[in-house]
Amino acid sequence: MKKELNHITKLIGDKKLTDKLLEGKFGLEKENVRVDKDGRLALTPHPEALGDKNTHPYITTDFSESQLEMVTPPLDTIAELNDFIATLHDIVTENIGEELLWTQSLPPILPDESKIPIARFGEKGRDKETYRELLSRIYGKERQLISGIHFNFSFSDDLLRVLHDALGKENDFASFKEVIYFRLVRNLMRYRWLLIWLFGKSPKTEDSFKVKSFTSDSYESVHCPKGISLRNCRTGYRNKEDYYIDYSNTESYHQSIRALVNSGKLSFDKELYHPVRVKYLDQDPQISHIELRLLDLDPLEKTGISETSLYFFHLFAIYCLFLNEKSNFNKDEQIIANANHDLVACFGLEDDMEISLFTGKLIKAHERVLTFINEMSDFVNKNGLLKNEQYQSAFEKVKDIVKNPEKRAANYISKEIEQKGFIDFHLKQAKIYKNETLKKGFNFYGLEDMELSTQLLLKAAVLRGLNFQVLERTANFIKLENDEKIHYIKQATQTSLDNYSSVLLMDNKQLTKKLLKENGISTADGKQYFDLKTANDDFGCFENQAIVIKPNTTNFGMGITIIKNNNDRKIYKRALEIGFENDETVLIEQFIEGDEYRFFVISNRVEGILNRVPANVVGDGKKSIKELVVKKNDNPIRGKSYRSPLEKLNLGEAESISLASQSFDFNTIPPKNEIVYLRENSNISTGGDSIAVTELVHQSYKDIAVKAAKALNVSITGLDMIIKDSTVPATPDNYCIIELNSNPAIHIHCYPHEGVRQKLNERILDALGF
Amino acid sequence: MKKELNHITKLIGDKKLTDKLLEGKFGLEKENVRVDKDGRLALTPHPEALGDKNTHPYITTDFSESQLEMVTPPLDTIAELNDFIATLHDIVTENIGEELLWTQSLPPILPDESKIPIARFGEKGRDKETYRELLSRIYGKERQLISGIHFNFSFSDDLLRVLHDALGKENDFASFKEVIYFRLVRNLMRYRWLLIWLFGKSPKTEDSFKVKSFTSDSYESVHCPKGISLRNCRTGYRNKEDYYIDYSNTESYHQSIRALVNSGKLSFDKELYHPVRVKYLDQDPQISHIELRLLDLDPLEKTGISETSLYFFHLFAIYCLFLNEKSNFNKDEQIIANANHDLVACFGLEDDMEISLFTGKLIKAHERVLTFINEMSDFVNKNGLLKNEQYQSAFEKVKDIVKNPEKRAANYISKEIEQKGFIDFHLKQAKIYKNETLKKGFNFYGLEDMELSTQLLLKAAVLRGLNFQVLERTANFIKLENDEKIHYIKQATQTSLDNYSSVLLMDNKQLTKKLLKENGISTADGKQYFDLKTANDDFGCFENQAIVIKPNTTNFGMGITIIKNNNDRKIYKRALEIGFENDETVLIEQFIEGDEYRFFVISNRVEGILNRVPANVVGDGKKSIKELVVKKNDNPIRGKSYRSPLEKLNLGEAESISLASQSFDFNTIPPKNEIVYLRENSNISTGGDSIAVTELVHQSYKDIAVKAAKALNVSITGLDMIIKDSTVPATPDNYCIIELNSNPAIHIHCYPHEGVRQKLNERILDALGF
Repeated sequence: MKKELNHITKLIGDKKLTDKLLEGKFGLEKENVRVDKDGRLALTPHPEALGDKNTHPYITTDFSESQLEMVTPPLDTIAELNDFIATLHDIVTENIGEELLWTQSLPPILPDESKIPIARFGEKGRDKETYRELLSRIYGKERQLISGIHFNFSFSDDLLRVLHDALGKENDFASFKEVIYFRLVRNLMRYRWLLIWLFGKSPKTEDSFKVKSFTSDSYESVHCPKGISLRNCRTGYRNKEDYYIDYSNTESYHQSIRALVNSGKLSFDKELYHPVRVKYLDQDPQISHIELRLLDLDPLEKTGISETSLYFFHLFAIYCLFLNEKSNFNKDEQIIANANHDLVACFGLEDDMEISLFTGKLIKAHERVLTFINEMSDFVNKNGLLKNEQYQSAFEKVKDIVKNPEKRAANYISKEIEQKGFIDFHLKQAKIYKNETLKKGFNFYGLEDMELSTQLLLKAAVLRGLNFQVLERTANFIKLENDEKIHYIKQATQTSLDNYSSVLLMDNKQLTKKLLKENGISTADGKQYFDLKTANDDFGCFENQAIVIKPNTTNFGMGITIIKNNNDRKIYKRALEIGFENDETVLIEQFIEGDEYRFFVISNRVEGILNRVPANVVGDGKKSIKELVVKKNDNPIRGKSYRSPLEKLNLGEAESISLASQSFDFNTIPPKNEIVYLRENSNISTGGDSIAVTELVHQSYKDIAVKAAKALNVSITGLDMIIKDSTVPATPDNYCIIELNSNPAIHIHCYPHEGVRQKLNERILDALGF
Repeated sequence: MKKELNHITKLIGDKKLTDKLLEGKFGLEKENVRVDKDGRLALTPHPEALGDKNTHPYITTDFSESQLEMVTPPLDTIAELNDFIATLHDIVTENIGEELLWTQSLPPILPDESKIPIARFGEKGRDKETYRELLSRIYGKERQLISGIHFNFSFSDDLLRVLHDALGKENDFASFKEVIYFRLVRNLMRYRWLLIWLFGKSPKTEDSFKVKSFTSDSYESVHCPKGISLRNCRTGYRNKEDYYIDYSNTESYHQSIRALVNSGKLSFDKELYHPVRVKYLDQDPQISHIELRLLDLDPLEKTGISETSLYFFHLFAIYCLFLNEKSNFNKDEQIIANANHDLVACFGLEDDMEISLFTGKLIKAHERVLTFINEMSDFVNKNGLLKNEQYQSAFEKVKDIVKNPEKRAANYISKEIEQKGFIDFHLKQAKIYKNETLKKGFNFYGLEDMELSTQLLLKAAVLRGLNFQVLERTANFIKLENDEKIHYIKQATQTSLDNYSSVLLMDNKQLTKKLLKENGISTADGKQYFDLKTANDDFGCFENQAIVIKPNTTNFGMGITIIKNNNDRKIYKRALEIGFENDETVLIEQFIEGDEYRFFVISNRVEGILNRVPANVVGDGKKSIKELVVKKNDNPIRGKSYRSPLEKLNLGEAESISLASQSFDFNTIPPKNEIVYLRENSNISTGGDSIAVTELVHQSYKDIAVKAAKALNVSITGLDMIIKDSTVPATPDNYCIIELNSNPAIHIHCYPHEGVRQKLNERILDALGF
């Protein structure tokens, strides 16, 4: 069969096979040690906010208590992988307080070895602790602190089945799969030095960094002249000696590793630190995926790994499947491959360094890389693997590096370390990334087209280690799940906690008011209209009064107009028309003077209060209202359609009517420091500002909000209340409830314009019992 | 104050007072004995379906187990009162099996007295039984079986407050109210003979009917020459002798009744069978309302009482408040009033009968009636009390009777009895009314504008003795309540039993299918489109296939078109347009051949299955499709907008497209007996026929329906399934689920076109825990 495999390239003429070749599952495991603001290893426990490291599927610790490990689930595309690790990185960053994530594989400033904390797993994880204690005795804690990235990869079963049909008929599918993957592993092992040569990013260590010697009781430094990946060098993250494994098939693979354990050279199978591992799930005898373990953290990337490298790894893995091989990667080949690995790790930045071909002949590494990448270029082009722009761009970047080896990141990192010092350079990077996250890390990358509330809920779900699935992106419909329960959630707040009829009551403003009144809660008085004519004929009833004209059942302030002291029939009629465009029933209510507050109630607790200020601009004496709006909208925190913490201000009809009632128009130039309100309604969705005042509002209003939610038997609601003075106790006359919303946004509370952020995403998960 | 009261008429010049005069609360208590098909008193127990007679607020028994009593709650208008008693009458009729409600106050064929069953109330109602046994000893069971109607009435507090402000300042409001009501009662007592003269309806008894004599051990017949209301005559439903009560005020009223009890003349206060009672609620010292007790059942009305008489009673009561009085209704006046009452009851149909004026002078009854009604006419006209058409019409009818006394119902009843016999005449009436109810008694009268499903749920609620409130008529939003719980319900099936996210899942057809598939349930495959152009460009994919084009989230079959073997781009495009008119997302699915079934699931049980047949007509070889549709729509069971068991067939665009795909149009004349389907979709809402097959469908499909409901965690749903052959077990290939509806109608199961009715209204109340 080997012979046929050497010719499978011919098969790929078929377009469908090309598509299938790019399919697969992709995962990352990434370690970052936590450091304090000065670049010292953090000696604090794994932050509680990050959950139980024993069971968390995405966030745990590796060897040390200070060594965070982030794990993605298997994902369908490299793009998703890149987005998920970026999101996970933000989530972790947001939950480690003042500490920073160390941006380099090689450790920061370390305390005495005795003070480096081994990860603690408690009663349930006693075995894990014992294993780590054993490791620290063999390898020393310093070596174990060297961090890295593992890239997990599998082909799609669809592809393997097509290949099996064409080539592997004499074997069953499981055996064929084994043949394929071991061939891939052997080639990855053979040519792994290329990845180090291209992507090595740990050229220098902190001056005092030393690791335990395997041969004596002393400590030795991890320093190589022109090293590109000290993590991968002989004194880096390695076993005591080189072990040779039989990579023929699953049986031989397991047997040769077992032999090492039986001979006492390794304590456990997993102690074999080879750069490529074959992975099996639980008791499943079939190969699950391949793990590529030699990747350094990239200090030049916030997430520690560039998209370019991920796309390239994928292409490299595909190419390795098709690379012809002449032997079964016997010990002689392994010796050469190991030597090349070590040479490149330690001398990779030297221009003329040489590596060995499997013939034993020496060749300049750069020359071999050029040949390899040229051949690979032919392969990927011929087989259409670059048809996707992202793959193409990644491959172009690698070709550029190959042409100009001085462009390799390690060169830049090396120089920066020389100039700024190892600690200062990496610390500066860490601080830049931390600030970026804290300032605008509100997105769930890859899902930015979903409502921000849903993105934030998903982030909280990841933080809690829940499984999640986006059921329908446009509808913001997701599924959250753990071992115990499943919840389907729309728009972050539409959950199974609320019942059908309560939602219908909330959505009917008249009925809401009726029930609230029956419960002794103040509401705005008003009249209901079913047609434009009748409402329009009642102009006289509302002339020169302050009124709100709004559709009976709508949300987000759509179709709501507030008119004060108006005696223009046309303005009144147009506001009615806007209302009727949004519903068959329109309400006209007295406009209550006071500030508008949004109370967010979850399970009979007020979890957040915003004072909502209508869309406004502040005059500078020069710019027109229109220009001021354009300027205010320039702030990246303002977006469109609930994808950002705040919404852009509009220059629409409602704004025009509101300005007209103040005798302004869009071209009016307001005096300096004068605040001009563009709308009467203060919804954030129409450009309003959100001021978080959860702790500042008098308790009596919170009690009323909870009473209102109880009256309608509602679990999650955004309740709008007008309050004359929120610091004095409520009386029947100094407040009124406008409505209860059945799909309130949470992002406005998580990221207010001003005031204390409330983690409503977490509170919703609490309420859901996660 | 009496003096001022004599002039309160002057106050009514004020329009607002007129409106207030007509306001009030109105109630009825009505007794009907149950009889078998031959007009014999039913000796069966009070039907279980009618609930617990100890506690039921609307349905109980009076003296005898066979003597049903229907009680309305206090209602705001006479119209509501009339509607409620009609509905209650239907509800009772539907739940007494083959038995009939006796249409006459005077009893049907009775068995031996010993066999007439006293009402049984069980452990809890031991006192009630003891009281009835006492009554049977004093009055004889035959007399107690005489049934009647009590009209309960109160003025609005608003009116009384206005009068109090104008007239009664020297008293507090409670005392003023007492003054008003006792004045009313005295005048009602004085002029009650008029009501008997006008509305008496028990002129004859069954030949053998006799009542126990108060003076001897014998039995005497209840026969009067030219009697108009034998129930009201001396041998009718009366105390042993005339008792004189002090009608001055609450204290004197209570005292004089107490004195009768203390002297042993009465056993209890309530044993005083006076024609007008002053009513107090529980321990409340204030008067609640006035009870007018002298009304006969009207055999000429299904409900036993005509709307005309109810409106007239109301006007009569108002007029009696304003009728001047010269004394406090002392014993002399009471003797005259009692005499007039007896005379009219026993001789009311005699042309020249006379009654006494309070001066003692005799006058022809007819003459006095003419004067009275003329004066009353002046009053009601002058004070605008007839501005409402119903009051006007009622008063006109009474004036006509007064002018032509031979038109009084008692004359007609009397003649009918003479011709057909007492039993046969009343039995015939009873059977007519019973058939009417069973055939088309689906409405909740007065709420016919609400969806039939809601009307039916309300009827079930009344049957169970629940309090109910229509919160919003147009939205079909109601509140049901008992001592233990409250439920808010929209459109009969949108309840708190379902949760928000499950409803959203149901409403999203794509997600529904996704989840069903994950649970191993077969669904229709399809494609989703977000714009017309893309969908239209895919014409080639669906050409000449059988497909369903439908909006993603809609109900009732709105916007759904089914096209078979179509190669006309225009038809395809138009169907898409119809879809996009109803939603932003349109699905195109393979049309699965088979019959369409609606499974109604409540709390994991299939409670009803309909085979839904698309709108169709059967040819007669002469009429065009259009004419056949018009004819089919003529059936009163077909209506519009879910107000009837079936919907009228349309002649719209969808029908036109469907006919075109069969090469028909509306003018095609189908051959005799050929069935032509006007739509492909079989929704009842688009004119389809409903065939109830709950017990005929193979259990495996019911299991699948329940599994589907569980998959979405849904309590109440209408699940649409295509089944190839519903008698053979389900396999993955012989059925598919189309959708789950979150607001399914129940009326189509309660009143199918064919097959066994399912009381889904009752099943929903079961599920709600009522």
